[in-house]
Amino acid sequence: MPDQRRLAILAHEKFPDRAKTALGVMRYSDDETVAVIDRDAAGSRVHDHTDTVPDAPIVGSFSEIDDEVDALLIGIAPIGGGFDESWRPDVTAALEAGVDVVAGLHYFLNEDEEFATLAAEHGAEIHDVREPHPGIGVAEGKSDEIDAEVVLTVGTDCSVGKMTATCELVDAAREAGIDAGFVPTGQTGIMIAGWGNPVDRVVSDFTAGAVEEMLLEKGDEHDVLFVEGQGSIVHPAYSAVTCGILHGSMADKLVLCHEAGREVVHGYEDTELPPIPEYVDLYESLAAPVHEAEVVAGALNTKEIDDDDAAREAVEAFGDELGGAATDPVRFDPAEIVDEIVGER
Amino acid sequence: MPDQRRLAILAHEKFPDRAKTALGVMRYSDDETVAVIDRDAAGSRVHDHTDTVPDAPIVGSFSEIDDEVDALLIGIAPIGGGFDESWRPDVTAALEAGVDVVAGLHYFLNEDEEFATLAAEHGAEIHDVREPHPGIGVAEGKSDEIDAEVVLTVGTDCSVGKMTATCELVDAAREAGIDAGFVPTGQTGIMIAGWGNPVDRVVSDFTAGAVEEMLLEKGDEHDVLFVEGQGSIVHPAYSAVTCGILHGSMADKLVLCHEAGREVVHGYEDTELPPIPEYVDLYESLAAPVHEAEVVAGALNTKEIDDDDAAREAVEAFGDELGGAATDPVRFDPAEIVDEIVGER
Repeated sequence: MPDQRRLAILAHEKFPDRAKTALGVMRYSDDETVAVIDRDAAGSRVHDHTDTVPDAPIVGSFSEIDDEVDALLIGIAPIGGGFDESWRPDVTAALEAGVDVVAGLHYFLNEDEEFATLAAEHGAEIHDVREPHPGIGVAEGKSDEIDAEVVLTVGTDCSVGKMTATCELVDAAREAGIDAGFVPTGQTGIMIAGWGNPVDRVVSDFTAGAVEEMLLEKGDEHDVLFVEGQGSIVHPAYSAVTCGILHGSMADKLVLCHEAGREVVHGYEDTELPPIPEYVDLYESLAAPVHEAEVVAGALNTKEIDDDDAAREAVEAFGDELGGAATDPVRFDPAEIVDEIVGER
Repeated sequence: MPDQRRLAILAHEKFPDRAKTALGVMRYSDDETVAVIDRDAAGSRVHDHTDTVPDAPIVGSFSEIDDEVDALLIGIAPIGGGFDESWRPDVTAALEAGVDVVAGLHYFLNEDEEFATLAAEHGAEIHDVREPHPGIGVAEGKSDEIDAEVVLTVGTDCSVGKMTATCELVDAAREAGIDAGFVPTGQTGIMIAGWGNPVDRVVSDFTAGAVEEMLLEKGDEHDVLFVEGQGSIVHPAYSAVTCGILHGSMADKLVLCHEAGREVVHGYEDTELPPIPEYVDLYESLAAPVHEAEVVAGALNTKEIDDDDAAREAVEAFGDELGGAATDPVRFDPAEIVDEIVGER
């Protein structure tokens, strides 16, 4: 596959508001989107609906795409992660044209007999990004041997914007002339990057190992690696993944991500979020015995605050609480914290 | 399967010194061992070799066992966790007799065509205890809703004796008249208990969920549940599992396990163990946002100390460092710390 892929992104009946994976890939990936496939919006263009991503035509099916395509990417996910049979004609058309298919569903397209047969017949590859490759194993504690500085986004909770903050920081660092790489750990991040291990899907004993493997692979290609964090260190269900990423990455610097106004764990309303300084202490003291890490900056998701001035105040208060620079990397300028993160190089 | 199983334990060429799983099951399980199978020691008895476990005859093959058997348990593991073909006649003889087979190998006996066929033909079950059942999912944060008090063993490192300490504490608590249950999390613990989830083998996102499922299942059957811990919260490779067990169990009390003289992480000699008080702070501060837990006692493995007086001194120093009662539950009396652990009920 070429470095920059030409993507067709399937988002039937859900573009743009219920197609978060599609938007994430269109916004942050180096790949080019040549068409969005949505039967409800066919005939319009992306910019008729949203200007937060590059423009592209919207078509009703894969076979209506005129341009050359390297991969068909499934950019939506039904609740439960199943495969919607109404997408089958698009997937078969792509495979018959020798075009790769990228999916992050729980249902593995590789295990679908028709798709597997077509892929083999036409020399196309199916990438189920949620399926870990079989070589992932136990961490050896070697992530600190790479040349790159490692920056990890950590969170106060799930769904506070760690992946978005990570992508914004990579882009801002590159704009500042820094050779920055992105290390994905979840399905949308993997689709954006075009590679990566689904750290939340590997065997629990291999959590740190799945991260270490990626860092050892990319560690000498960039000056700074931004690792996408997952969950939160005090999450009742997902803290194991968070802890494995913290120790597996042996991060040098941490960026604490939070959503303004979030007071309890999302979906676990009995569990209150601790104060921000407690998160700073917890992440730093837990990291230290394996590799010293410092919370150097914060990314605050202010989407629930309407007023820009109020959002700016919230960002400043957040920075005071964590003892570093802070911004909302989507609403304001991520460059505001890039210096603090990589300035000491 | 009956509550107390009659076991035949396979330990060819390795009993007793290189058969740790066999010895663990014989020492701590409620099951009765009717025979050990070891072709090198055939004709002798267990007590000719060790008096740390109940006596039993040693035979050369499964077909030489006179008594009735409920299950054949594989009590040894070659490096790598493979299946040794020299064991095949014993496994087939057991299955042909309708006897269940219990194994903790990486090689799943259920996926061996001959074994699967024989098991189906003769109504025997194969339990690959390292294979998680497919229903394990995300934790719901409900372990604190059970009636039982939850005591979790946590460690300064891997292989410091957490499973042994947990089993000794369960036995000592029962001797003190306490209705205590054992919640296993690893393969030997599962073989001892005859049930349980291999927490280190589940999907990383389900680590806490695999523990919670067990606690919800057993939570109303006992007054105190002793949960077997894994790894260490500062282990470069395995901390994810440790963290998932800590939050998934929502433990009330923690017992810190350590091996006297251990100064660096086993197998990761670049990583020094932090001081004992730092472990106490880390475990308690990490647990608190999900469920308050207190390190109330310590279990020190003193097997590397020859002299009993020196071992006693090491135990007392360890207790001082962690701020609670301490013992070596194998060398001395586990009852020494049981009061401190469950005394407040």
